[in-house]
Amino acid sequence: MNVVVQNIERADEAVIDGLAKCGVATVHEAQGRNGLLADYMRPIYNGARIAGSAVTILAPPCDNWMLHVAIEQVQAGDILVLGTTSPSNAGYFGDLLATSAMARGCRGLVIDAGVRDIADLKEMGFPVWSKAVFAQGTIKETLGSVNVPVACADALVNAGDIIVADDDGVCVVRRDEAAEVLAKAQAREASEAAKRARFEAGELGLDMYDMRKRLADKGLKYV
Amino acid sequence: MNVVVQNIERADEAVIDGLAKCGVATVHEAQGRNGLLADYMRPIYNGARIAGSAVTILAPPCDNWMLHVAIEQVQAGDILVLGTTSPSNAGYFGDLLATSAMARGCRGLVIDAGVRDIADLKEMGFPVWSKAVFAQGTIKETLGSVNVPVACADALVNAGDIIVADDDGVCVVRRDEAAEVLAKAQAREASEAAKRARFEAGELGLDMYDMRKRLADKGLKYV
Amino acid sequence: MNVVVQNIERADEAVIDGLAKCGVATVHEAQGRNGLLADYMRPIYNGARIAGSAVTILAPPCDNWMLHVAIEQVQAGDILVLGTTSPSNAGYFGDLLATSAMARGCRGLVIDAGVRDIADLKEMGFPVWSKAVFAQGTIKETLGSVNVPVACADALVNAGDIIVADDDGVCVVRRDEAAEVLAKAQAREASEAAKRARFEAGELGLDMYDMRKRLADKGLKYV
Amino acid sequence: MNVVVQNIERADEAVIDGLAKCGVATVHEAQGRNGLLADYMRPIYNGARIAGSAVTILAPPCDNWMLHVAIEQVQAGDILVLGTTSPSNAGYFGDLLATSAMARGCRGLVIDAGVRDIADLKEMGFPVWSKAVFAQGTIKETLGSVNVPVACADALVNAGDIIVADDDGVCVVRRDEAAEVLAKAQAREASEAAKRARFEAGELGLDMYDMRKRLADKGLKYV
Amino acid sequence: MNVVVQNIERADEAVIDGLAKCGVATVHEAQGRNGLLADYMRPIYNGARIAGSAVTILAPPCDNWMLHVAIEQVQAGDILVLGTTSPSNAGYFGDLLATSAMARGCRGLVIDAGVRDIADLKEMGFPVWSKAVFAQGTIKETLGSVNVPVACADALVNAGDIIVADDDGVCVVRRDEAAEVLAKAQAREASEAAKRARFEAGELGLDMYDMRKRLADKGLKYV
Amino acid sequence: MNVVVQNIERADEAVIDGLAKCGVATVHEAQGRNGLLADYMRPIYNGARIAGSAVTILAPPCDNWMLHVAIEQVQAGDILVLGTTSPSNAGYFGDLLATSAMARGCRGLVIDAGVRDIADLKEMGFPVWSKAVFAQGTIKETLGSVNVPVACADALVNAGDIIVADDDGVCVVRRDEAAEVLAKAQAREASEAAKRARFEAGELGLDMYDMRKRLADKGLKYV
Repeated sequence: MNVVVQNIERADEAVIDGLAKCGVATVHEAQGRNGLLADYMRPIYNGARIAGSAVTILAPPCDNWMLHVAIEQVQAGDILVLGTTSPSNAGYFGDLLATSAMARGCRGLVIDAGVRDIADLKEMGFPVWSKAVFAQGTIKETLGSVNVPVACADALVNAGDIIVADDDGVCVVRRDEAAEVLAKAQAREASEAAKRARFEAGELGLDMYDMRKRLADKGLKYV
Repeated sequence: MNVVVQNIERADEAVIDGLAKCGVATVHEAQGRNGLLADYMRPIYNGARIAGSAVTILAPPCDNWMLHVAIEQVQAGDILVLGTTSPSNAGYFGDLLATSAMARGCRGLVIDAGVRDIADLKEMGFPVWSKAVFAQGTIKETLGSVNVPVACADALVNAGDIIVADDDGVCVVRRDEAAEVLAKAQAREASEAAKRARFEAGELGLDMYDMRKRLADKGLKYV
Repeated sequence: MNVVVQNIERADEAVIDGLAKCGVATVHEAQGRNGLLADYMRPIYNGARIAGSAVTILAPPCDNWMLHVAIEQVQAGDILVLGTTSPSNAGYFGDLLATSAMARGCRGLVIDAGVRDIADLKEMGFPVWSKAVFAQGTIKETLGSVNVPVACADALVNAGDIIVADDDGVCVVRRDEAAEVLAKAQAREASEAAKRARFEAGELGLDMYDMRKRLADKGLKYV
Repeated sequence: MNVVVQNIERADEAVIDGLAKCGVATVHEAQGRNGLLADYMRPIYNGARIAGSAVTILAPPCDNWMLHVAIEQVQAGDILVLGTTSPSNAGYFGDLLATSAMARGCRGLVIDAGVRDIADLKEMGFPVWSKAVFAQGTIKETLGSVNVPVACADALVNAGDIIVADDDGVCVVRRDEAAEVLAKAQAREASEAAKRARFEAGELGLDMYDMRKRLADKGLKYV
Repeated sequence: MNVVVQNIERADEAVIDGLAKCGVATVHEAQGRNGLLADYMRPIYNGARIAGSAVTILAPPCDNWMLHVAIEQVQAGDILVLGTTSPSNAGYFGDLLATSAMARGCRGLVIDAGVRDIADLKEMGFPVWSKAVFAQGTIKETLGSVNVPVACADALVNAGDIIVADDDGVCVVRRDEAAEVLAKAQAREASEAAKRARFEAGELGLDMYDMRKRLADKGLKYV
Repeated sequence: MNVVVQNIERADEAVIDGLAKCGVATVHEAQGRNGLLADYMRPIYNGARIAGSAVTILAPPCDNWMLHVAIEQVQAGDILVLGTTSPSNAGYFGDLLATSAMARGCRGLVIDAGVRDIADLKEMGFPVWSKAVFAQGTIKETLGSVNVPVACADALVNAGDIIVADDDGVCVVRRDEAAEVLAKAQAREASEAAKRARFEAGELGLDMYDMRKRLADKGLKYV
């Protein structure tokens, strides 16, 4: 039952990079408000905005063995995504594992558990989104799996899905929907630029979106 | 992207009923300590112990429309399993929906959100495991999906997986592993009965499991 | 700034008792899904369903002095509602205060803090909805106010508002809207009885609420 | 029941600016340790210290429609304050709404829910205190109210009350008490400056506040 | 560093039983409002009220090995108290360990972690106060200690301290203070009986405790 | 029962400074993965890394009186460590107390409660690790103790124990084990430097730690 899936498919690099530019909020809207990981997933430092293909890890509580297994599966541009079989805030990942992951071109880590050595990770420029910052060490006793579907922070992530992460959190995009989502996200961005200019000029959303009549129909009273 | 998968496969009834008898803790151990839903999933009343095939629902926050869609897919012996695209404690489910679900033979609900009318549900004998008890009403505006894989309370649930639920919480068993898990769970139960008798007679785990030497080797000191 | 408002207006007794019968979920729906207190407010025992006029208390953290002041303001049929100026789980209320409150005809307590002596309170039949059960004692050093508007568990409660509480939680109804809300709640109950019968007979919500076309229009696909 | 109150009274600008200078901790003490919002309300970036008149919003869960309505009511120097009828961490507010609010002179947002686009908001210099950072989109289906009293993060806020917010959190001051609170806060600041100098010189609080005798009387033993 | 302290001193049995009769709230008050464990420690079923000598366990996260070691140290009338070196909700304890503990006369378990098989434990009459109910299995790989001081749910517990536990939670009493605390608790109970009678007769706390003048002096206004 | 222990022993200064250099994660590992405070203890600003001897405080909820008592006991190089007898997020400590503590050479504060004036504290360079940032004021009514053992954020801290704190959190080291822990921590650091170089060169943990055979033996399958 414990497997490592070795050859996963990845989305087109240009699509991935395009999604990174759009950012989490826009991508999430573009795919119908789906795919967000829970809001307790916070970056260990602000300012990073990345996208990459998910190498997924299903790990036991308090046990980080599978991270070593997963790093061998990483290709340049990938993002490690770890879910656990039982909740744990332990510090599964620190500067040594980050060094190893960076050596293989890994862009970052999304972990529904804890991380440590965050001062070092920030200095190294290795971004992590995690449930906790906690120095608690882990053991290497129990198997998990790599590149199987995992539940991570309330979201389902498949190996090869695209992960987008920035200061707002983390979003997952299905690989076979990525190109379409990118197109919608870029359209949304274009439309937002125009709206931004009108808002700056003082136009109200009430008028821009023609809301007044619908509000009145629903019964809103001005007093 | 919003789909209802209509014909799902279900595990053998005898296997399902066997798993119910074993209960959550034993089944979870029998499959290698995997498959538990998060411990915030609590029963609305104590004493129920059920197993059934999962009819899964992926629902938007604050919107219970998909429950009506899902109930049509329920067959006798099924359990509804609802995950959300974004966390919500709203009361997606109450006595009317329970009446409808029971009319189709539904055995219970596992919901990573809120439930209401719990006094009525208890009287009706319809067990629910939920994240919250909350009367907050929901709307019917946004689509979700039925019988797709869902992340529910930190666990991945596929349509047709077997759900086991009792006072200890909720566990999911993959359909194609169910028979093997049942065999292991039953073996475990048999072994536990023997151990229970020895414990009752005053034998210590230290002796029964032959732990003393290993403890000493690891460095435990008696003072 | 610390005041006790002595003469508050109360709603009609028949209206209050009518709301109690409808229960929290129905009343909350009848007033447009407003008025629920947060879902962390749980009863110390199941099975109570009450309604009454709110005697409100604004209390400092860890200090239950104002409860003594408030009890003097209680009339038969009232419910004490306590919010704090700063979060506290301390046990503001126990069996002695309950004895005093019951002697004045108080129907129960809703407290955004802790309660203790819950075994005694259950035996006495004095229901409490609280944020915590905690034996931590409080002091009597700092003033608060009685019968001023309070924020209690995410809801605004005015003195004389009607509180409805049952196993599903707590709901507040504005005094001047109470009769109208009752009428709507009773209409809702009547309508639900009819629906329940149809659900029991096996009719689906999809058909009863004529949802199929709207679902298809929104894009739901059956596969 | 859903209203927009259009003409609210505001406190004197000089009083508001004076309160901003004093900051949250001092203002809170000056009004008898009242008025703090819950400590889960955190700024999206550090270093902002603002005060302004509250334009209040009562919004349904997962629905940000009323923000558009409220922005029309904003005057230069106001702060938007949003409470919900049911808990929600959804991202009600992002860079477009901030652009619109800033165009009307809005100084910031206090929201008992989620916010998104925080990298943009920081760059724009639009401060927000929120319960969550979450990209989850909202809908525009259900009415709420504007400039009614709202329960926001455990505190009651009336339209026109003064909001003070800095890295320590958020405090609300009643409009008709604002001048008096400012006077007390400024007195407190003056007194603190003197104390700070004495502490720097090594004097102990035990001596400065003459605590030794009272500690001994209460029974403190040095061993 | 990992030790088992074998010969611990225990308090007088009559004192222990006397404390059980007084219950958690009274004992906690009698010792100056000290000794409560955090309010997240809840009984797995209501109605138990016990006291006993603490056999303490310091255990690693997700590892229940030390429970077997500790049970050997239990004498009739003891209560097991488990703290962890790192937070864990895993199910350290179930019906087999309970059988073993009961065979040695153990009165119950207080565990700052998870417990499972709660339906069985209730049937066996073995009370547990825990942070969580969770079926998650544990391993036996890492040493801890037995009968050393442990931090358990915010409280410091020494081996041989007296644990009092009931529906209100858990309280710890130092062994060398137990007799004095019992005397104070019994005095308190006597005094409460008299007060209860007066409250039942309708006397107000305001009068019984002579509070009116002090309230007025502090500035409370009746309006 | 309320005492101030005046003459506590402290570890060697060179040992303390050595531990500071190693940091929390390394020190925690070096002592067998023990001694971490709970992960909710977060620094009010990033970048501080300190170690010092603990001056411990056991304080009542919402009452900061004992901080004044404790500061008199501080010697240059000490760290204040505050646990409470009951959970409280109130702001026990701000810029005035920090001024006083710094005047005595205090290196920082670890507080299982709230802190305020964090903008000032950051400017002063006084680091604090706390459970909350909250401006809520406290009172001075109830005694606690100084330099007794305290439970602080799930860990037991004795007066004179060494506290190590950085961006990863807080760790406590027993005074009589400090030299040995330092030696192990330094050995660990040396070993990590070598590993880091190999990881940078692209070597995998699977090979460096010789894991492949053990993984296969446990049953891991590559597919």
